[in-house]
Amino acid sequence: MRRDKTLLLTRAALAALLLGGSISIAQAKSPAPADLKKHGTSAADKYKPSLDVMKDMKVDQPGAKPGVPALSKAEFAKANKIYFQRCAGCHGVLRKGATGKALTTEITRKNGLEYLISFITHGSPAGMPNWGTSGDMSKQDINLMARYLLNEPPTPPEFGMAEVRKSWKVIVPVAKRPKKKMNKINIDNIFSVTLRDSGEVALIDGKSKKILQIIKTGYAVHISRISSSGRYLFVIGRDAKIVMIDLWMKTPGPVAEIKIGAEARSVETSKYKGYEDKYAIAGAYWPPQYVIMDGETLEPRKIVSTRGMTYDTQEYHPEPRVASILASHYKPEFLVTVKETGHILMVDYSDLKNLKVTDIEAERFLHDGGLDSTGRYFLVAANARHKVAVVDTKESKLVALIETGGVTPHPGRGANLIHPKFGPVWVTSHLGDETISLIGTDPVKHKKYAWKVVQTFEGQGGGSLFVKTHPKSKHLYVDSPLNPDAETASSIAVFKISDMAQKEPKYKVLPIGEWSGITEGVRRVVQGEFNMKGDEIWFSVWNGKAQESAIVIVDDKTLKLKHVIKDKRLITPTGKFNVYNTRKDIY
Amino acid sequence: MRRDKTLLLTRAALAALLLGGSISIAQAKSPAPADLKKHGTSAADKYKPSLDVMKDMKVDQPGAKPGVPALSKAEFAKANKIYFQRCAGCHGVLRKGATGKALTTEITRKNGLEYLISFITHGSPAGMPNWGTSGDMSKQDINLMARYLLNEPPTPPEFGMAEVRKSWKVIVPVAKRPKKKMNKINIDNIFSVTLRDSGEVALIDGKSKKILQIIKTGYAVHISRISSSGRYLFVIGRDAKIVMIDLWMKTPGPVAEIKIGAEARSVETSKYKGYEDKYAIAGAYWPPQYVIMDGETLEPRKIVSTRGMTYDTQEYHPEPRVASILASHYKPEFLVTVKETGHILMVDYSDLKNLKVTDIEAERFLHDGGLDSTGRYFLVAANARHKVAVVDTKESKLVALIETGGVTPHPGRGANLIHPKFGPVWVTSHLGDETISLIGTDPVKHKKYAWKVVQTFEGQGGGSLFVKTHPKSKHLYVDSPLNPDAETASSIAVFKISDMAQKEPKYKVLPIGEWSGITEGVRRVVQGEFNMKGDEIWFSVWNGKAQESAIVIVDDKTLKLKHVIKDKRLITPTGKFNVYNTRKDIY
Repeated sequence: MRRDKTLLLTRAALAALLLGGSISIAQAKSPAPADLKKHGTSAADKYKPSLDVMKDMKVDQPGAKPGVPALSKAEFAKANKIYFQRCAGCHGVLRKGATGKALTTEITRKNGLEYLISFITHGSPAGMPNWGTSGDMSKQDINLMARYLLNEPPTPPEFGMAEVRKSWKVIVPVAKRPKKKMNKINIDNIFSVTLRDSGEVALIDGKSKKILQIIKTGYAVHISRISSSGRYLFVIGRDAKIVMIDLWMKTPGPVAEIKIGAEARSVETSKYKGYEDKYAIAGAYWPPQYVIMDGETLEPRKIVSTRGMTYDTQEYHPEPRVASILASHYKPEFLVTVKETGHILMVDYSDLKNLKVTDIEAERFLHDGGLDSTGRYFLVAANARHKVAVVDTKESKLVALIETGGVTPHPGRGANLIHPKFGPVWVTSHLGDETISLIGTDPVKHKKYAWKVVQTFEGQGGGSLFVKTHPKSKHLYVDSPLNPDAETASSIAVFKISDMAQKEPKYKVLPIGEWSGITEGVRRVVQGEFNMKGDEIWFSVWNGKAQESAIVIVDDKTLKLKHVIKDKRLITPTGKFNVYNTRKDIY
Repeated sequence: MRRDKTLLLTRAALAALLLGGSISIAQAKSPAPADLKKHGTSAADKYKPSLDVMKDMKVDQPGAKPGVPALSKAEFAKANKIYFQRCAGCHGVLRKGATGKALTTEITRKNGLEYLISFITHGSPAGMPNWGTSGDMSKQDINLMARYLLNEPPTPPEFGMAEVRKSWKVIVPVAKRPKKKMNKINIDNIFSVTLRDSGEVALIDGKSKKILQIIKTGYAVHISRISSSGRYLFVIGRDAKIVMIDLWMKTPGPVAEIKIGAEARSVETSKYKGYEDKYAIAGAYWPPQYVIMDGETLEPRKIVSTRGMTYDTQEYHPEPRVASILASHYKPEFLVTVKETGHILMVDYSDLKNLKVTDIEAERFLHDGGLDSTGRYFLVAANARHKVAVVDTKESKLVALIETGGVTPHPGRGANLIHPKFGPVWVTSHLGDETISLIGTDPVKHKKYAWKVVQTFEGQGGGSLFVKTHPKSKHLYVDSPLNPDAETASSIAVFKISDMAQKEPKYKVLPIGEWSGITEGVRRVVQGEFNMKGDEIWFSVWNGKAQESAIVIVDDKTLKLKHVIKDKRLITPTGKFNVYNTRKDIY
């Protein structure tokens, strides 16, 4: 056990990540300080959505107040831009607080200018990044931000049907699309790979390992999802732009696009029998809403606001953002998680005019999650509460709320495996520490283990984003790309499932970064993804934008290096989504 | 047919009434101009909720703007009070518009001070009252209001669980209440009578016609509702205060109270088998929300915000007020109508932790409504759209959206009768004209008439609020208390149901005002209500607060005067709710 590497994340990186915020890789400790500054700046400059939003934002400064410093119009616009890039992710677009504290003027004015300057400069143990001492913000900018925070926040614009519809574009009408697959690609084995900082996805053939296509998308694609039939691929950027790609075309490419808000994270498509490929849904951070669209054209059909009461204190929250969305296999429903208020919405899409929603009180700060191996139960992290909520998608009820035993669970969709002792379990690792938690998911044959943390063991360290296995695999892979230790960040821990009956199962370390042959950068290794057959697992070696990145493919049986994909177009690869595994919820 | 009396309402009265707004009886034409001013002032001064709200309101004036007149703190507070009394009902608490136009600063500043002064003084044909020329507002106040409207509106405070719970008071705990009825009153034949301007209800024994009790309540009680068992009576004031009265006690009186917001209209109790007396629900105008409470103690259980998108244009509305609420007999559901956005919510109360809501797209400006004779279909007016929406409470779907053929339907809960030609129909009269509309409600045996206006005929005139009949009655009664003609306002039109096969059925006029023996005031006659047996109908003779009022009881068979209740405690009686008819939805 390498306890020396079980370091916590830097405060800046953790804070930025907690709510699905944008993380610049420079925010974590890097072995190359010269690079750090370069990429920090570059990542910030790339944050396009803020610019779009601000164009429409009312930047009127509500008139002078005694003791409230005035900002020039240009200063206010600049501060607004910085706020949206650096602060809004934690403190909220409206400054009402989320993971970060509220920054409304009754609070900031009580604290005063000097306090704010000091706080922004030095950060706090509670998670506020040290923007000044880290070198991420200049003294001038910190002074500007402190003055900005003493003024009332501008309200970002709404984004209702008129705006959504205006952004909607059908690039290839349904009638002009092929009636059958026009290429020879085994589309079920395509990997859709997010190229984070270039605003693109790469489609890579799972067999030949060749890049089939690089497609322009929204900024910093968060996820890819596949229509039930496997034909349509949906990607969503943090700027809330969805691009829909038709994999049947001779050259797979975009057929429709739309923007469903100013900032977003999630997209999904209908999977219930009879509704295959019928609807798409996306959830926005701002405005707080979800949008149901036609599954073939992205035509917007229904917008539903998620503004409402916190589940526990029942006070009104103006900005409850939509986190993960999942399609149920048991009912014609989407599961929409609402972060700040802690509600899980089961949205029945069988009748949009008479929309039935079951609103489940779960836990605040819902983030990401996935289904158990049967597809019946949805497990989702309430990250800042260090819990996992379990919903029975058949009965539409909360089944359990479980403390994971670790700090800040980040399951992605989790990993399902058959434990030698506890039967079917679902696994999550953690952002905040080295804990790997196994939750029993079989209330029938393993009733006493169901919805309990049956085992925790230690991985390489904190800063883990994803765990992965496959029904045909005998291994569990755990990444730790955000660990401040470079060696830990660039390698993967592999557990043998058969060893898990032991109290402290050992793991093997795969030096993926080293295997990539890349010698520069931190070589963060992130997000294992199996191919369709389940015999090889792909990892991203995620470097800075100006550095070399790669995808490293490992043979699951032998745990040996099988292939390295290198290409100058592979800029900052992060998430990878195998078409078959994604559409079938195999993870 | 007395066509000379089919006058439209004064603009002021209609505007004030449209959205359940507060109407001062002085707003309609009165034969006693001297009284008019007196009551106008008195009614305004009584508007208590505005004072409560403003106490907590941030009355900070957002700093000076070029061209925007500054108000002193005292002026701003005064203008705020007037706005809440006179303007918010139509223009919205947040000035975003409702029946009245939006009054946000980008609009008011474009129009400018002089325009606003002129508009407030003279009104408009579209429905804006002529506050100046009517004598209701002084020149100084109009100038103040015009300046006030050029400034940003203050945001009224939220009213979440903390505030609701703080207002909650159990006066007699359940354990200390009687286990059986401790009085000799036939409680099913009690009438709960709103004493509008005194902030009370009168409980009147249906047999002896004696006042049993006068009970202090919230301001201007909007409705009374009875628990399924008939034991508990709930009244809600416009100030959102609910008082719960136990009719089993030796002396019926309040056992619990609560305030669910700053302004409200509706309260209801659960009626589905197995849930009798279990829950109460109330809907607020501000904040836009509904609150589900324990049916025996009023303990608040769940608050749900109604903020969201308009059903048609799908743009975000910050203030969609809750209008009527009705308990389903077919499912454990409440039907909650949301006015500005046009949604009808079927709220399943069988599992509050996993709350299921079917959100039906209906029509904007939902107001009041009731069930058809079978209890399966809910018919509700979209008043400013001159339509009625029909919901099938069994299938949870919108069945029809029907133009009533009149101007501004105001059905109350409507009236159900068996038409000699069209079978079961539901009736509404109109605020804006003399039309009485009959809608077929039997899709099984009278399919071709179902959900169509099968007949319209003319009553005495516009300004009608309520129609009434009873399964045992052969008559339909139509009031017209807001008609500007004093004789029309103080009398009732009665139609013989058997005459309705005629093209233009005649009506008989009952001079209820005259029968009351009162000689002063307009003697507005409002809201017929049957006794439990269904052989007599009660009418309120509603006069000014300082004038004599009465209740006049008519024998349904002979249409002759049966009894007049006069008592100095009967101050401004309006709505009356017979316990049995109300709890069984007989109307």
